[in-house]
Amino acid sequence: MSGIEKWGIFEVALNGPSDGNPFLDVTLDATFSKANRHVTVPGFYDGDGVYRVRFMPDDEGLWSYRTLSSAGALDGRAGDFEVIAPRDGNHGPVRVSHQFHFAHADGTPYFPFGTTCYAWTHQPLEMQAETLETLKGAKFNKLRMGVFPKHYIFNQNEPLYDVYERGPDGKLDFDRPSVVAFRQFETQVGALRDLGIEADIIVFHPYDRWGYCDMPAAQDFAYVRYLTARLAAYRNVWWSLANEYDFLLDVKPIEQWDQYFHIIEENDPYRHPKSIHNGEEHMNFNHRKPWIDHVCIQNWNVKLTNQWRQEWGKPIVNDELEYEGNIVAAWGNLSAQELVHRFWITVTRGGYAGHGETYEHEADLLWWAKGGKLRGESWQRIGFLRDIIEKDVKVGLEPATPIGGWPWTRVSAGYEGEYRLIYLGEHQPATWVDGLPKDDGDYDVDVIDTWNMTISPAKRIASPSMPRLRQRGGALTDGKPRSAFALELPGKPYLAIRVKPKR
Amino acid sequence: MSGIEKWGIFEVALNGPSDGNPFLDVTLDATFSKANRHVTVPGFYDGDGVYRVRFMPDDEGLWSYRTLSSAGALDGRAGDFEVIAPRDGNHGPVRVSHQFHFAHADGTPYFPFGTTCYAWTHQPLEMQAETLETLKGAKFNKLRMGVFPKHYIFNQNEPLYDVYERGPDGKLDFDRPSVVAFRQFETQVGALRDLGIEADIIVFHPYDRWGYCDMPAAQDFAYVRYLTARLAAYRNVWWSLANEYDFLLDVKPIEQWDQYFHIIEENDPYRHPKSIHNGEEHMNFNHRKPWIDHVCIQNWNVKLTNQWRQEWGKPIVNDELEYEGNIVAAWGNLSAQELVHRFWITVTRGGYAGHGETYEHEADLLWWAKGGKLRGESWQRIGFLRDIIEKDVKVGLEPATPIGGWPWTRVSAGYEGEYRLIYLGEHQPATWVDGLPKDDGDYDVDVIDTWNMTISPAKRIASPSMPRLRQRGGALTDGKPRSAFALELPGKPYLAIRVKPKR
Repeated sequence: MSGIEKWGIFEVALNGPSDGNPFLDVTLDATFSKANRHVTVPGFYDGDGVYRVRFMPDDEGLWSYRTLSSAGALDGRAGDFEVIAPRDGNHGPVRVSHQFHFAHADGTPYFPFGTTCYAWTHQPLEMQAETLETLKGAKFNKLRMGVFPKHYIFNQNEPLYDVYERGPDGKLDFDRPSVVAFRQFETQVGALRDLGIEADIIVFHPYDRWGYCDMPAAQDFAYVRYLTARLAAYRNVWWSLANEYDFLLDVKPIEQWDQYFHIIEENDPYRHPKSIHNGEEHMNFNHRKPWIDHVCIQNWNVKLTNQWRQEWGKPIVNDELEYEGNIVAAWGNLSAQELVHRFWITVTRGGYAGHGETYEHEADLLWWAKGGKLRGESWQRIGFLRDIIEKDVKVGLEPATPIGGWPWTRVSAGYEGEYRLIYLGEHQPATWVDGLPKDDGDYDVDVIDTWNMTISPAKRIASPSMPRLRQRGGALTDGKPRSAFALELPGKPYLAIRVKPKR
Repeated sequence: MSGIEKWGIFEVALNGPSDGNPFLDVTLDATFSKANRHVTVPGFYDGDGVYRVRFMPDDEGLWSYRTLSSAGALDGRAGDFEVIAPRDGNHGPVRVSHQFHFAHADGTPYFPFGTTCYAWTHQPLEMQAETLETLKGAKFNKLRMGVFPKHYIFNQNEPLYDVYERGPDGKLDFDRPSVVAFRQFETQVGALRDLGIEADIIVFHPYDRWGYCDMPAAQDFAYVRYLTARLAAYRNVWWSLANEYDFLLDVKPIEQWDQYFHIIEENDPYRHPKSIHNGEEHMNFNHRKPWIDHVCIQNWNVKLTNQWRQEWGKPIVNDELEYEGNIVAAWGNLSAQELVHRFWITVTRGGYAGHGETYEHEADLLWWAKGGKLRGESWQRIGFLRDIIEKDVKVGLEPATPIGGWPWTRVSAGYEGEYRLIYLGEHQPATWVDGLPKDDGDYDVDVIDTWNMTISPAKRIASPSMPRLRQRGGALTDGKPRSAFALELPGKPYLAIRVKPKR
């Protein structure tokens, strides 16, 4: 049956004026209706006299639309279209679910296991293809990527396309977006969607030698509107307002950042996840503001994940808990084992983490910026963790306690009902009891080697009796065992324990 | 030449009444004088009609004394004695130096590298001898040890001696200290002194089945006075008011803890270091109080060491950053590598750390409680670190920044003048520049493998140019190199870099 799949993109293309500056001079939007429901979305100019309005329908059946424009040729245009069931693998956009987690619109849980290729869409086309090929073989389901090209250590090549057109003087004209650049960008957002990967779009960043981050507020606002008009209909879009917004505060004050959020809210009726990423540790944006959906954070101190949850009351996505690699910068030379370790700590404390890879390369081809090939050893282990979570977790893990309590300030444990994932990390007990069931129910209990990626049944032993402190009267009465059984473990670090009710 | 060495113990022994309860009924102190200087110290009853007053002179030459007592036989007794130069290895008591560090009274710096054997003086005598033998072969220079025996997991044997006498009913009489127990305790404090080890005496702790921690306040106060009278003259004494005082708050409120401190201040004219150790992470005592000399802390989050320094403004001794071992409790099953790692982080952030070892043992002989043998792999590496510090550091390392700043929230660096110790830990750069000299001076630069205990010259390479962020005008002008040279490193974790000016 023909038609637009639910959470697909319906696009209206119209011919209109191309004189003057259509990006500035012409207003266009369209209202999409189904029965008594009306959703208005902005259109955008796509060059050569062509205007487009994109819409992501979220309900099956017959929809109609009608345009409104300052240009006669674009105004009052109407039509209708059929929305059909989503195809396999299309679960709709991701939104916050159960306060600290995410789910697709169809209810499928979404557990972010992201990676980072800031400027991959600005590399040569062959390298972009290589990046997609690599992603196909990995298990990442979110990608942080910037709209603008990047000027930074290891990032000194010119972008494939300028993001704005150049005037006759050769200078970028920040009133004229390059439709070639934006088409390439959205093509790749679509390619990610087809791989089941969310595109975590970084709207601003400070790594710039072209002038993109020095545009005045009015041009910034127009840019955010344009970006939203073009991309909001892609179901896999997330809005990351900035990478390291605090390094831009001299040119973009806090109120301006709020205004970007408002522009997106006004133009994205689908409510894609929105957040903003700090640079300095102590410079978290005020994530309590209602237009921020989840906490995007950069912080190495991952045992605080459950505290951050409590502090902000929103999902925690720690997208930069430092990267695996060996470069000169401290944020980019973590051992693979340490990054895997931090992923496990974050996830078992009820948060989500992001991967990045920064190994020195003779041609400066670092995954974290340019994509291409993965060279490290953490990505496979992160995929292993994702498989474990997706196999059994329905909504998301809750930390054993929000802010601590014995022994969960030291080791990490995530619970969902009777399902428990206890991550021992740098601890190497030969015997373990904490977090094990108190009843003698029917549980599968496994030991997971997080580095060697093995899962094997745990050996149960009698739970040791724990003497209570300060027993009066001199009697050596043991306290009650803390669990129905204990486990005998191999006494080496980087193990986890999984407890699952048998049915 | 005969006489008492400076910082040795001069003891006055007197015969007096033994009827009634001499511990309660008789007051005794003595004033020691040299010219116009007068120091009054308390005496104590040592059983069998014998009373003693101990004094640690801190100045060479002729001293005199005169007693004051409620008992005629003990009152107005006087004498004099000659104080001679200290023997080799006697540097006098340790006190806080330069705000965040320690030094002996003769100016020799003291860098605490302690360990923990809570109840070693309550074990059989052969085992106590074994503990001393082990300490002789290790490089620890401080030992945490409790006056009272310990009731806890793995600690269920009866103590060698009761700390109080038992009455005819077999019950402990908390008005009559056991002089046998106290003599044994001070003998071992003296044995530690002779090994160059400070005795970090834990005055109260909650691990009890005999009733020691439930004494009423008046008996507690008498106990603290008695302990101080017996032990303050030992130059290697430190007063640790409690282990995990917060687990005793139901029976000993905060004001009572302050009172213990005051009693020690009133009776210890030598001002031995005083502190108090928390249980729960968030339950640090208010270390700002003037009677607390240094911060004794229990916290795994060792990258915060420089923040704690700033918060309290006193030396940080993290005596429980968890222990090497494999027992069932999370605080006691750290891998050896992790404990060494935490030591390096703590020390290069300007703090001091304490060791403990808790490996399961078929006869419950765990070093952390009973002493005996060391079985782990961290103690040698901690000794290696102590050697490195003592070789070159004069006062103590200062963290690269008090609360962070690039990149020292992530990696750790301690400076003393131009001497620098940079600990990379879980980071594995192939190239490194941060913290290296900015001038081209004459430095020895070494790479230290903290686990394999090797020190080898570092390979210098040209410092990479760092592009600045947000360069206007499109010109790719590199920023200045951040150091005079960079280092090529093996790209593996747990390395440190040492920079030393050549002369």
